[in-house]
Amino acid sequence: MSAESVELSGVGVTPRTGFGHVIWYRGKVDLSDLPDPKTVDTDAELERFESACERAHEELDAERERARERVGDDEAEIFDAHKAFLDDPAISGGVETAIENGIPAPHAVRQAFEDPIAKFEGLEGRTAERADDLRDVRDRLLRILTDRDRTDLSDLPDDTILLAERLGPSDTAQLDPETVAGFATVFGGRTSHAAIFARSLGIPAVVGVGDELAQVAEGRPVLVDGTDGLVVIDPDDSARERATEEESEIITDHVTTQDGSEIEVASNVGTLAELDPADEAGADGIGLFRTEFLFLDRESPPDEDEQYEAYVEALSTFPDERVIVRTLDIGGDKPIPYLDTPNEDNPFLGERGIRRSLGTDADLFETQLRALLRAGTEGNLAVMFPLVSHVEELDSALARVEQVAEALDEDGIDYEIPELGVMIETPGSVFMAASLAERVDFLSIGTNDLTQYVMAVSRENEQVADLHDPLHPPVLRAIRRTVSAGHDGGAWVGMCGEMAGDPDLTELLVGLGLDELSMSAVTIPEVKSNVEKTDSEDARERSERVLEAETRTEIRRLLSGDTNESGE
Amino acid sequence: MSAESVELSGVGVTPRTGFGHVIWYRGKVDLSDLPDPKTVDTDAELERFESACERAHEELDAERERARERVGDDEAEIFDAHKAFLDDPAISGGVETAIENGIPAPHAVRQAFEDPIAKFEGLEGRTAERADDLRDVRDRLLRILTDRDRTDLSDLPDDTILLAERLGPSDTAQLDPETVAGFATVFGGRTSHAAIFARSLGIPAVVGVGDELAQVAEGRPVLVDGTDGLVVIDPDDSARERATEEESEIITDHVTTQDGSEIEVASNVGTLAELDPADEAGADGIGLFRTEFLFLDRESPPDEDEQYEAYVEALSTFPDERVIVRTLDIGGDKPIPYLDTPNEDNPFLGERGIRRSLGTDADLFETQLRALLRAGTEGNLAVMFPLVSHVEELDSALARVEQVAEALDEDGIDYEIPELGVMIETPGSVFMAASLAERVDFLSIGTNDLTQYVMAVSRENEQVADLHDPLHPPVLRAIRRTVSAGHDGGAWVGMCGEMAGDPDLTELLVGLGLDELSMSAVTIPEVKSNVEKTDSEDARERSERVLEAETRTEIRRLLSGDTNESGE
Repeated sequence: MSAESVELSGVGVTPRTGFGHVIWYRGKVDLSDLPDPKTVDTDAELERFESACERAHEELDAERERARERVGDDEAEIFDAHKAFLDDPAISGGVETAIENGIPAPHAVRQAFEDPIAKFEGLEGRTAERADDLRDVRDRLLRILTDRDRTDLSDLPDDTILLAERLGPSDTAQLDPETVAGFATVFGGRTSHAAIFARSLGIPAVVGVGDELAQVAEGRPVLVDGTDGLVVIDPDDSARERATEEESEIITDHVTTQDGSEIEVASNVGTLAELDPADEAGADGIGLFRTEFLFLDRESPPDEDEQYEAYVEALSTFPDERVIVRTLDIGGDKPIPYLDTPNEDNPFLGERGIRRSLGTDADLFETQLRALLRAGTEGNLAVMFPLVSHVEELDSALARVEQVAEALDEDGIDYEIPELGVMIETPGSVFMAASLAERVDFLSIGTNDLTQYVMAVSRENEQVADLHDPLHPPVLRAIRRTVSAGHDGGAWVGMCGEMAGDPDLTELLVGLGLDELSMSAVTIPEVKSNVEKTDSEDARERSERVLEAETRTEIRRLLSGDTNESGE
Repeated sequence: MSAESVELSGVGVTPRTGFGHVIWYRGKVDLSDLPDPKTVDTDAELERFESACERAHEELDAERERARERVGDDEAEIFDAHKAFLDDPAISGGVETAIENGIPAPHAVRQAFEDPIAKFEGLEGRTAERADDLRDVRDRLLRILTDRDRTDLSDLPDDTILLAERLGPSDTAQLDPETVAGFATVFGGRTSHAAIFARSLGIPAVVGVGDELAQVAEGRPVLVDGTDGLVVIDPDDSARERATEEESEIITDHVTTQDGSEIEVASNVGTLAELDPADEAGADGIGLFRTEFLFLDRESPPDEDEQYEAYVEALSTFPDERVIVRTLDIGGDKPIPYLDTPNEDNPFLGERGIRRSLGTDADLFETQLRALLRAGTEGNLAVMFPLVSHVEELDSALARVEQVAEALDEDGIDYEIPELGVMIETPGSVFMAASLAERVDFLSIGTNDLTQYVMAVSRENEQVADLHDPLHPPVLRAIRRTVSAGHDGGAWVGMCGEMAGDPDLTELLVGLGLDELSMSAVTIPEVKSNVEKTDSEDARERSERVLEAETRTEIRRLLSGDTNESGE
């Protein structure tokens, strides 16, 4: 190893390594000293602030659309949160009061954001990361107010390693994976938006490196190792080679464990644009094709033909693989203007998923099923129903499929009934998993919602975020129960929640008996590689020890491989 | 039987029978014909409407407090819903527009409520009952606008049988169980507010009798049989006697099944005023003492001594019985002004129950535990923790109890650590029930929240109310799993949700293995009587058949005793 090479460690957020040369991104705005209040034109400054807010809204709208295309619907929602901060009367009122006291608009903005940022910084966990969002909004306003051009992060030179104190979601969403070989930041955690965006874009990234990162000079050769969370300055050739070797190769074939059990590794997609990247990452088909994108950002629902075309496009991208389409899963938390989505006090416990398809949205459901049954002739299609909580709901959904098939028969239209399945997201469906499995071909566990309902904790509430973790023992037991009951009922069992894409959990999930794992394209190579390294019997034994654990602390210890228990 | 006696049937809502003489309650307001719009003083009418709204708000505030004292906190919330209707801009805007078009205020009110009432009437289930609430609000405004005195339902003659087309919650909350022997209505269902209030007040009642009720003349002798849902006009002596015999006698002793297993039948209370009625109904102690009332409607939390006095009062009402106090269970759905309760998107999945006690409200929790440990010396006290979802939460809560005990030791204050238990309300706690049971003396199943989380359905959302039913198979399986795991872990297992107080389910719950049932005072006599009629072994066999059922339809059939299955 070269004597000069220096390693800094942080939190790795993308399981990839990249090498390039440093470009520093300085997002900070230096403001001049405060002028004499008497010289400030209060009305003009108020107007300036108002038009800066309008401009910021326009930018955020545009960036939300961009992020929706490039990263995904869920991730794009952060820009709505930023818009809400802009409209927060506590903040805008603070700015206006400061301006009325003779402070120019930029200084007033800086001052009014201080307290809210400090408040979030004093908190723990994910909530603290809202401070980053507030800084992002503040810096946007300051940039607009001081008429500075934005650094164009979407047009960086090839092989850039971007370093920054922090990267906000609006910064990260601009990065181009073709040119940015990696980034590293002084602050930030695994669940920050910068980290989430980096994973979605597949950019190697290490966050939370600390102050030492600041010593890295512009133009230096740097390796960013997102797997081990390392930033290596002036890496020697062997370090570069080793890092590249460690990076998972794309595996296009189906994979088996060491003892020959095949585990399907498929991809979750939420737009047609994600199909090719999934294929390129070696996905064994699509394990979760979300259909909400077909219904968003328009004035009326897509008709049968438009849906048919979308489903056929997915099937033609994967001519030899299964494509699992989830029927429309919307509710009060994601209102769609042309649908009658109620304003609910607890939308996650409201009229969502299959409940709407069997009720308010029965017509939409029929149209979607017609499009799906027609597409069934074009490939290996499967269809699954979201948010089922008891058997009668599934029976009703299956009856609708039969009715649609009869209607297509009558109309003389060619169709094929696809493989059918149920999402396991509610505790109700876990308790009834054997009965559900007897009625369908497969179950697919959605760990995000399942964790939410098992732990009775919203996946969006920062205040209780620590409870929303599938490694809490009751969630793992619910998963195990689902797999056993599903197999007893004669169905295969997959998983399409975030948990499935965590390479650190591949062995555990194989041990729990899952037949299929579906995830974001970016983690497919590493998960496939991990499947190949796994011995099913070892994995089963280890997972049984994990299932016996009573606390998450104990589970984390077991997963980290620390088995130094007293007496053993 | 007398030749003249006539029976009408409806929905019985209180398992009691009453006899008396009919008084009709006509709540309707007859409005004169519309005057010429040109003669209407628009400004005066707008002012008249505005002051009627203010007056209505004042009345509702007073009635809410009255209902809170007499019926309970949860039930009193309906008056907040009525206040929200008053403030609904869609309705008040409609009234104002009508007035501006030259319609006098009372006519404008009648007109503006028509559409919203019709809209709710067109729906099914509990939602349809919102129409009753809207009528209640409308009639209140009309009464105020037409300067009519309200019929004083709180001062009716002895042995009144009140008949009405409908009774709104504000009507029913006024009724005095000492003078009203029963009531019956043309419209209304088991879940209407009139029905809920009648049960809480212990007034015999039959709702939804239909138009035939209108033929019953003022002053006629009538028997209202809330058990069988019958209204008997001119009942003969034997019918009156038989009805009285059928009514459950108060049983003050503990009860056992036919084969000698003791089942504790305790009471849920939410205020000190409910202690004596619970004792008089024969409660074997208190199975759920909610402590929220101590914190509501005040400027600052109650101090240690005030809490101590309240707990001692409960213990002194039941000197020989157990009193189970639930520690503070609040959250974003029931904000308390002096606490920092966040505004959450999904409050039922937010910072509630033990989460607040271990976090934001740690100081309140310590004070409450100090008061409880001190009260522990004064009787048979037990304490349970709400909304536990994993083992580490319970461990933290138990550690807090130890810390408080040590602090009391240091202060030289007398105390005793009470029996300790966990509420089983989240699916997480069901999956971990054995581990939880090993750490405490008892588990208590809260079926309202448990149903909510197992089925992933808000208990307050009318649109999905059909899913919120503990007779859905997954909920029964969760209960069975809790009882088995609790017993395996060495704890006794009780139930304090609404399900425990349904006399039709007593045999099922005994069969599922519950050791204790806790309910509103009014159903205690009938549940105790039903326990005495139950054979444990028969109950166990029947409950096993129920647990095997895959659908609620099948369960209802089994519970109704219809066992004519083909092949059996």
